[in-house]
Amino acid sequence: MVQRNPKIKALRTHYLFPEINKKKQEFLRRSPDAQLISLGIGDTTYPLPKSIANQLSLYGAGMSTLEGYSGYGPEQGNAGLRHLIASRFYPGLAEANEIFVSDGTKCDIGRLQVLFGSSATIAVQDPTYPVYVDTAVALGQGEAQQEATGCYGNIVYMPCTSSNSFFPDLEALPRTDLIYFCSPNNPTGAVATHEQLARLIRFAKKNRSVVIFDAAYSAYIQDKTLPRSIYEIDGAREVAIELGSFSKMAGFTGLRLGWSVFPKELRFEGGESISTDWNRIHTTFFNGASNIVQAAGAAVLEEEGWMAIKKMVEYYQENALLLTHLCQENEWQFYGGVHAPYLWVEFPGRDSWEVFDELLEQAHLVTTPGSGFGPSGNGFIRLSAFGLRETVETAVQRGKKDSSRTSLRW
Amino acid sequence: MVQRNPKIKALRTHYLFPEINKKKQEFLRRSPDAQLISLGIGDTTYPLPKSIANQLSLYGAGMSTLEGYSGYGPEQGNAGLRHLIASRFYPGLAEANEIFVSDGTKCDIGRLQVLFGSSATIAVQDPTYPVYVDTAVALGQGEAQQEATGCYGNIVYMPCTSSNSFFPDLEALPRTDLIYFCSPNNPTGAVATHEQLARLIRFAKKNRSVVIFDAAYSAYIQDKTLPRSIYEIDGAREVAIELGSFSKMAGFTGLRLGWSVFPKELRFEGGESISTDWNRIHTTFFNGASNIVQAAGAAVLEEEGWMAIKKMVEYYQENALLLTHLCQENEWQFYGGVHAPYLWVEFPGRDSWEVFDELLEQAHLVTTPGSGFGPSGNGFIRLSAFGLRETVETAVQRGKKDSSRTSLRW
Repeated sequence: MVQRNPKIKALRTHYLFPEINKKKQEFLRRSPDAQLISLGIGDTTYPLPKSIANQLSLYGAGMSTLEGYSGYGPEQGNAGLRHLIASRFYPGLAEANEIFVSDGTKCDIGRLQVLFGSSATIAVQDPTYPVYVDTAVALGQGEAQQEATGCYGNIVYMPCTSSNSFFPDLEALPRTDLIYFCSPNNPTGAVATHEQLARLIRFAKKNRSVVIFDAAYSAYIQDKTLPRSIYEIDGAREVAIELGSFSKMAGFTGLRLGWSVFPKELRFEGGESISTDWNRIHTTFFNGASNIVQAAGAAVLEEEGWMAIKKMVEYYQENALLLTHLCQENEWQFYGGVHAPYLWVEFPGRDSWEVFDELLEQAHLVTTPGSGFGPSGNGFIRLSAFGLRETVETAVQRGKKDSSRTSLRW
Repeated sequence: MVQRNPKIKALRTHYLFPEINKKKQEFLRRSPDAQLISLGIGDTTYPLPKSIANQLSLYGAGMSTLEGYSGYGPEQGNAGLRHLIASRFYPGLAEANEIFVSDGTKCDIGRLQVLFGSSATIAVQDPTYPVYVDTAVALGQGEAQQEATGCYGNIVYMPCTSSNSFFPDLEALPRTDLIYFCSPNNPTGAVATHEQLARLIRFAKKNRSVVIFDAAYSAYIQDKTLPRSIYEIDGAREVAIELGSFSKMAGFTGLRLGWSVFPKELRFEGGESISTDWNRIHTTFFNGASNIVQAAGAAVLEEEGWMAIKKMVEYYQENALLLTHLCQENEWQFYGGVHAPYLWVEFPGRDSWEVFDELLEQAHLVTTPGSGFGPSGNGFIRLSAFGLRETVETAVQRGKKDSSRTSLRW
């Protein structure tokens, strides 16, 4: 038969969240009556605002009429939605025809790796969203994991720890073709300042690298002086691609909608347009986001929807605030939770999966072990603020009730 | 800056349908009053049956309630939908946990190429759906197009012409790792018999190849003795992956829903499960089909929806019958149009784009030039039966009215 693809063989068998789920199921088999609370995966729970759900409902009903039915749309997204995205997020910074609508950031990342190909070299923040690394390995940019370090070969890990305020020491890094950068960050919750991003863009220009700026959590930035888009930085249009998402901003995790921005100024070494090649890959590997979901995406960006989703974001921000109280009461050192829906909690000297197991067994709490996001994540766990208020309040109550129960003070 | 990916450079600049659209727009600029009729792209037009649109509408409205809201589902698809697909299409042939729900066949093909990797060798029918070839070239399985033949390098083209009844001469072919095979075929409309597919499976077994069987048009098979799934062939579970789609079966071209089938028996040379690697790629490069679309997909497969979409398929089959009459009246040699929504019309000795231009200029008819599907497609055009009845009837009327106008007898 056919040979197994060595690039896939180089991937770890388990992706982080399936592994967590397995542990959860095993625990529930042993303790079937336990009421688990999940502060783990970043899955949204807050129902959609009426105006957005109404749009889904109307569009769906319309699909049974001649006027309302629609088939294939442009793979790049409906023109109206592209304009709305440009005017909401990039006024004066990017044009509608530079926006490519997609079914979400995860899928865009895979296609981006196809665009740049197996010879591209990449750098990722450490800890990082695992999909950057996993897709890079599957396409041959990265190599098998090194036992000693836990790092995949041929990928530059940029440690982001409390000692460097979760912003990489750029001067210490070798050049790579691509630099993945996520702010507000998943998992650390760190948000980069204007000055830091200006340094990143200067670094990319000097090195002739392309920055892939993942802004999936930009809606969570509370301080208006902090940059929400990389294009707020001078010169970024020449070196940066931006990824945006409706998932965490508008509760579209299950509906699937996102976008990428490819400014016209972006060029390969030979002067060819990167956007032109992206258009080819986007239209060859993808057939457009679902029409009904694009219609709902437009409703998000119209005035009524836009006001309503601000409330949704505030709800999760209040959850995050409750979780910061929990950390404070337990005297846990934590980061994030202000401009991001994640708290990054430090347990110095301990193994993340050990802390994960302890919280699961003793507090019946599902979290995400930091080491799943990269070697520099070990000793941390990530708490997600995407639960329902009731869930988060219960977690906080449990923390208060029995504060001397374990070494973690649960 | 970053080097351009040579694999993308090897791709032709234009994908078939954008090129057609460009020609159409150019024509409309010159003749703004022309009433173009499209028998071109395979885009559906028939409104969704009520029960399916109702499901979209209900699910959409429910998203604004706590009970109805849903976020991330399993990337492999909702369990209920996987069961419905298994029981509707593969009773006794495949299990629910062998079905992976996706956002459509085009996207599955790209991910399949990632699964098998850049060293895999592939064979495609010629003519063929361009996405098999384009994704293969983008991932490095294929090489730049050869001027003389119009073929990409390192890809085996299996000519399917009237002289071999559109079934490849297997004995004449070299071994490849993968064999893409589409039946009912896009673009030729040919449907493979049980005996032909049994030969294909024997050939794959002998060569230790994997068949990727694209069954996106299986709903159009009118003769119950013809195979609708490759798994109706003995031994196919050991060598074949099947791709299915809601697009043409249920009018989901814009909603986006499809699936792949990976039988447990499928193994790599070293004995590793192909399905396990596919699960890794599917869950790493994809975040699940939209929840609301999956709900509508389930409504398609429930009894009421199932009865209703049969009428939709019959409607397109009747369109195809009208187009066969058109061809007969014009004394055009044609193939397909019975068990497939496409007619493959032969204009011996002529260039496809020339015929395309002539039909556009003189009959204001948009078709698809056969050469866009591969070198053996030259001299043909494809007619699609997915238009509204009125459109198809107008095309037929035009053909009758002025039969001596051009060399094509329009």
